[in-house]
Amino acid sequence: MKKLNTSPISGMQELLPKEQAIFNNYKETIREVYRHHGFLEIETPTIDRAEILFAKAGGDTEKQIYKVIKTEEAADDADQALRFDHTVPLARYVAEHESNLSFPFKVTQVGRNFRGERAQKGRFREFYQCDVDIIGRNTLAAENDAEVILTLNEALEGLNLPERLVRVSNRKILAGFLDELNLQEVAKEILSIIDHAEKVEPEKVKAWLTELNIGEERVAQVLEFIEISGDADTVTRKLKAFGFASEKFNEGVEELALVLRTLYGQGLHDSAIGDMKIVRGLDYYTGTVFETIIPSRKEIGSICSGGRYENLAELYSDQKFPGVGGSIGLTRLFFLMSEFGMIKGDSEKPVDYAIIPFDSTEREYCFKFAERVREKGFKVDLVWSDKKLGDKLKYAASVAKYGIVLGENEIRSGEFIAKDFETGEQTPFVL
Amino acid sequence: MKKLNTSPISGMQELLPKEQAIFNNYKETIREVYRHHGFLEIETPTIDRAEILFAKAGGDTEKQIYKVIKTEEAADDADQALRFDHTVPLARYVAEHESNLSFPFKVTQVGRNFRGERAQKGRFREFYQCDVDIIGRNTLAAENDAEVILTLNEALEGLNLPERLVRVSNRKILAGFLDELNLQEVAKEILSIIDHAEKVEPEKVKAWLTELNIGEERVAQVLEFIEISGDADTVTRKLKAFGFASEKFNEGVEELALVLRTLYGQGLHDSAIGDMKIVRGLDYYTGTVFETIIPSRKEIGSICSGGRYENLAELYSDQKFPGVGGSIGLTRLFFLMSEFGMIKGDSEKPVDYAIIPFDSTEREYCFKFAERVREKGFKVDLVWSDKKLGDKLKYAASVAKYGIVLGENEIRSGEFIAKDFETGEQTPFVL
Repeated sequence: MKKLNTSPISGMQELLPKEQAIFNNYKETIREVYRHHGFLEIETPTIDRAEILFAKAGGDTEKQIYKVIKTEEAADDADQALRFDHTVPLARYVAEHESNLSFPFKVTQVGRNFRGERAQKGRFREFYQCDVDIIGRNTLAAENDAEVILTLNEALEGLNLPERLVRVSNRKILAGFLDELNLQEVAKEILSIIDHAEKVEPEKVKAWLTELNIGEERVAQVLEFIEISGDADTVTRKLKAFGFASEKFNEGVEELALVLRTLYGQGLHDSAIGDMKIVRGLDYYTGTVFETIIPSRKEIGSICSGGRYENLAELYSDQKFPGVGGSIGLTRLFFLMSEFGMIKGDSEKPVDYAIIPFDSTEREYCFKFAERVREKGFKVDLVWSDKKLGDKLKYAASVAKYGIVLGENEIRSGEFIAKDFETGEQTPFVL
Repeated sequence: MKKLNTSPISGMQELLPKEQAIFNNYKETIREVYRHHGFLEIETPTIDRAEILFAKAGGDTEKQIYKVIKTEEAADDADQALRFDHTVPLARYVAEHESNLSFPFKVTQVGRNFRGERAQKGRFREFYQCDVDIIGRNTLAAENDAEVILTLNEALEGLNLPERLVRVSNRKILAGFLDELNLQEVAKEILSIIDHAEKVEPEKVKAWLTELNIGEERVAQVLEFIEISGDADTVTRKLKAFGFASEKFNEGVEELALVLRTLYGQGLHDSAIGDMKIVRGLDYYTGTVFETIIPSRKEIGSICSGGRYENLAELYSDQKFPGVGGSIGLTRLFFLMSEFGMIKGDSEKPVDYAIIPFDSTEREYCFKFAERVREKGFKVDLVWSDKKLGDKLKYAASVAKYGIVLGENEIRSGEFIAKDFETGEQTPFVL
C-alpha cells in the first residue's frame, strides 16, 4: 500500500514536544503579563465572514487570505475565510458586542492567524500573534499609547531577549509634514519610500524621491525629515526647527514627546527613541506608530509593532471607536530565537518523576503511589510497559528528571529510591 | 454606507470577556491535570494535507471537512483542509517524527477542530477538544487504558461537574460475540443498532434486529448481550455465562475487568461500570471503549469519550503504533454547562485593582504606582480616560474588584484608599 506524505504542509511550524514546551512557556509568559496589565482575554472564531475579512484586507493581504469552501452539510452559511490578523475580527467583535462591553475596552487576543504568502524561510502561513488593544468609545487618552508599548515591552522582557530598542513615531507628524510641503498628491508614494528606506542604500532613496518630480528642495527636506531620530528632546527640537504651523504636525510632535517621556519615566531611558523612519505600512494607522528591534540583531527586523487607529469599526458601526494596539508575532520570533541560539532552558525535562512499576502485580498500589506524588504538585508519569526494566528506565530518563522503581522489595519495605537521571545520584524518596 | 453584518458565522462560539475568562480557566485546569499525569503537549497545524484528512474521514465526517482554497501566492502547495479532530494529525505527527519521540509517547493536544455539520443548537462548527493519547511502539500495556480514563476523570473533576458515571466496554467482546453467533456478515449493522439503542424504544431495537433475518434465537441473544451492564464482577459473570470459547471474547472480558478494577482501586467504585451498549462508532476502535455521562443530566449525553485503537499510523508507516486516547469536547461542554446553570464563579472580576488617575498631571507617578501593585502579583488596570471621575469609577467597577483614585491629595500625602466595588467598603491601601 502506498504510504502518504507525513510532513506538515509548507509554511507550518510543527515542534517536537521539548520545543513545544518552551514555546508554550513563552506564550503563557506573554499572556500573564497582558492579564496583569488588566487586558481581558477574548477569542474570535478562526473562520469569519469573507465579506468582513476582504473589506479590510487590501493590497497584498487580499492575495494571502485563505478562503474556506462551505461543506455540504453547512451549505446554508455565509461565504467564509480564515482570519489573517486579530484586528479585523476584533473590530467586528466590538461592533457586535459593544452594548455588553465597558470602554476603554482593554482586550487581548492570543491565537493563530493565517496568511498564504509565498514560501520563504522564517515566514509562516499559520502563526501565533499575541495582541493587546485598548479601544475607546469616541475618545481615547494618549497615555494608552504608552500603556500598550509598556505592556508589550514587559512581555518581551519575560522572554529573556537581548537588549531591545523601541522606535516610535506619529503619523500625524508625517501627514502634517506632507501638508506643509504640498505633497498630499504623492503621499502614498512617499510613505512607501520611507517604509522601505532602511532596506536600501541612501542613494536609492534619493533616486526614488527624485522620480516623483517634486523638485530638489523638497527632496532634500524629505531626506532631512526621515533622518530625524533620537531621544524626545532631540526629535522635538529638530522637528520644531521646520517651523511648521500645521496643527496636525504639532499635535503629532506633542503626542510623540508625551509617549516617549512616559516610557522614559518607566525605565526605558536608553531603549526608546523617536524615529521618523517608522511608518508601519500604507494605511490604517493615524497616530502613534512603533516597532521594537534588537539592535545587536538588526537583521531580524521588527519583533513587535503596532500603533493608533482612529476608527476601528467604521465599516460596521456608526459609532466611533478609536484604538491603540500592538502585537508580538510569536511563531516567527520563536523561529528566529532558535536560529540565533537565543532559546534558554531547552534541556528542561517535561516530567518531574517517572514512576516505574517493576511489573503488574501491584497495579493498584502503583497507581495510588503516582497519584500521591502528583498531589505534592509534581508532574508524574506512571510507566506501564511490557518492556524490560532497562528499556523502561531508558524511556523514563528521556522524559523525566527523576525515576522511582516500584518493585516487590520497595513496596514491602516502604523505602523508595529516587534516581536523578542527570547526575545518576540516588536519594531516598519519602512519600 | 452599508454596514456589514457583524455576527459571527453560524456554529461559532463567541464569548464575552467574562465568559471567556471562565472558559479559559476550565481549559487551563484540564491542561494542568494532563501535564501532571506526564502527558507532553504538542500542537499540529490547523491546516493539513487534504490527502491525509480525507483518507481517515469516511462516512459523515467526509461531508463535514472544510476544504481550504490555496492562495495565489501559495499556489504551489499541496491540497489542504482544516483538521476535524486531533487523532488524524497525531497519526501523521507520530509517523513523521517517530525517530525523535520516546515510546510510550504520552501526548496531549488542546486546540480547535472544525466540522461543518448541519446547524443545530449546541453543536459547533469550530470547537475545542482536549485530547490525551498514549501511543506505544509495537505493544502497549492495558494499564494505559485505565490511565487515560483516570486522567480524563480527574480533569472533569476540576470543572466542578455533578456526579459522573464512566461506562466502559471492550470491542473485542463484541467482535468475539459476533464471531460465536456467526454474525460477521451483519457486524456493521448490529454495531450501528447497538450504538443507537439508547436513543429509541426497546421495541424499535428488536424490530431493527428482526429485519436482519438472523432468526429469533440470535435476536434474543443480541438483546440479552446489550442489556449487560454493572460492576466488574456482575459483567464478567454475565458474559462468561454465554460459555463462549472465542479467544477474542475472553481476552476482551479480561481487559474490561482489569480496567474496571483499576478504576475501582483509585476511588471510582461507584462511578464506573461495564456496559455493552458502549460501542463508540463504527470503525476505528479495537479494544477498550468508554464514555462519561452525568446520570442526573442524561439528556446531555456523553461529555468525554475515547478508546483503544490497534494501529494509529497504518496509512503512513510500516511500523505498528497501538494507542489509547480520549477527549473532552470543551466548547460543547461549556455551552451545556451554561445552559444547565452549572457554571460557577461567573461574577468573578478579571482585574484586581483599577488605578484611577484623577487627571494627567502626575502621569509618571501613576504609571509607577500601577507597576508596583503589579509587582505584588495583582492584575492591575491603569485607567486613562478623558471622562469625568464618576464615569471612570463606573468603568473601573465593571472590570475590577477594587479601585484606587490617585489625586493630588493622595499623591502628596502618600495615603491611599482602596474601595471594594462589591461592598462599598473603603480601606487604607499600603503600597
